Amino acid sequence: MKILITSGGTTENIDAVRGITNHATGTLGKEVAECFLAQGHDVTLVTTQRAVKPKKHSKLKIVLVETVADLIAELEPLVKTHDVIIHSMAVSDYTPVYMTDLEEVEKAPAVKDLLHKSNTSAKISSQQDYQVLFLKKTPKVISLIKQWNPDIMLIGFKLLVGVPKEELLAVARRSLATNQAHYIVANDLTTIDDNQHLAYLVGKDDVVVAKTKKAIAEMILERVTHD
Amino acid sequence: MKILITSGGTTENIDAVRGITNHATGTLGKEVAECFLAQGHDVTLVTTQRAVKPKKHSKLKIVLVETVADLIAELEPLVKTHDVIIHSMAVSDYTPVYMTDLEEVEKAPAVKDLLHKSNTSAKISSQQDYQVLFLKKTPKVISLIKQWNPDIMLIGFKLLVGVPKEELLAVARRSLATNQAHYIVANDLTTIDDNQHLAYLVGKDDVVVAKTKKAIAEMILERVTHD
Repeated sequence: MKILITSGGTTENIDAVRGITNHATGTLGKEVAECFLAQGHDVTLVTTQRAVKPKKHSKLKIVLVETVADLIAELEPLVKTHDVIIHSMAVSDYTPVYMTDLEEVEKAPAVKDLLHKSNTSAKISSQQDYQVLFLKKTPKVISLIKQWNPDIMLIGFKLLVGVPKEELLAVARRSLATNQAHYIVANDLTTIDDNQHLAYLVGKDDVVVAKTKKAIAEMILERVTHD
Repeated sequence: MKILITSGGTTENIDAVRGITNHATGTLGKEVAECFLAQGHDVTLVTTQRAVKPKKHSKLKIVLVETVADLIAELEPLVKTHDVIIHSMAVSDYTPVYMTDLEEVEKAPAVKDLLHKSNTSAKISSQQDYQVLFLKKTPKVISLIKQWNPDIMLIGFKLLVGVPKEELLAVARRSLATNQAHYIVANDLTTIDDNQHLAYLVGKDDVVVAKTKKAIAEMILERVTHD
């Protein structure tokens, strides 16, 4: 099968030297890629420059992206030509619009007006005691996948931080329905560290639990190849 | 000599999954460290997890930091016990205080009041179309170095983006005086790529130019060991 995997975290630039980054390391995506490669599948991995990557492999192709806009541009044609997508990348949900000092915000007749401004300088000055950064929502990439290719099998991810298990599963089930996913891997940052990675593979009719990145990868492989 | 080098870029967290990052890779700091190690000096390198690092070496000690607060905590005792500091790290000049939606900013009696708020949720919600992030200035680490140890030789860095050479040199000369630096390495992001790295080593009485990272490292070594 042709397997498309996304991993790592996107960065949205504030100016030429600063950006807002999602802290994802790419470790889980690497593990999933290696799992599928070991079974002879073709893998395309869309990831970032600083993410951890699998070893070179004749059946592995790596595509590098940085921003959400890059990701959308690279992903659309790939989604149309793959059988399965495992979308584990942490995609920035907001992107910078305009950064200014407190005075401009205080003096603006309507705060909304500032959303139409943009910074002209390549490196925003650092003279003021405070800065205000306006951000706007990025497109939800996971919601575009089935629009691009209704036949692709979609495994999505949901990461929350410090919520009860019931809430995590409820949010995953909503994502499953909204994005027409086959499974959503639901996990919580507070139960992820170097030695464990607790995750629930949430399907329409079942929930399976895994406790390490390797177990998550094997669980995904098993579901994708036997469903 | 005991040489202290900083490299890479700090990250200031917005919440548990997002942060504002300086894009520095650590490549120049690595080059400088290798140059001093090759001449038999002791090197302590303060850098970040994702920065490029020199190969292991019996005279190299690596200290990892993430935020400006980490950097200050680690650096103070090190500055007091080293002869020279080459401070090439890109230090975040602002750190997040509070992130909220447009409505709260519009309704606030005074925008300033929001500077006293902080986010309670570990992962800020991504439901709203817009978000507003308030940031405050971090301490200027370079200005603390001579306060911590008046005898240390300080080589500072100044990175600007797309400015005339005269402005770059003027800003470097101001930093030289303000921070009591021995030299300021002044460079512009628009003249840095994989093949070149144009930099001016600005001293009280002279300016020397280098065109590659290796040449910058050698120029610093030469000035530090012969001045």
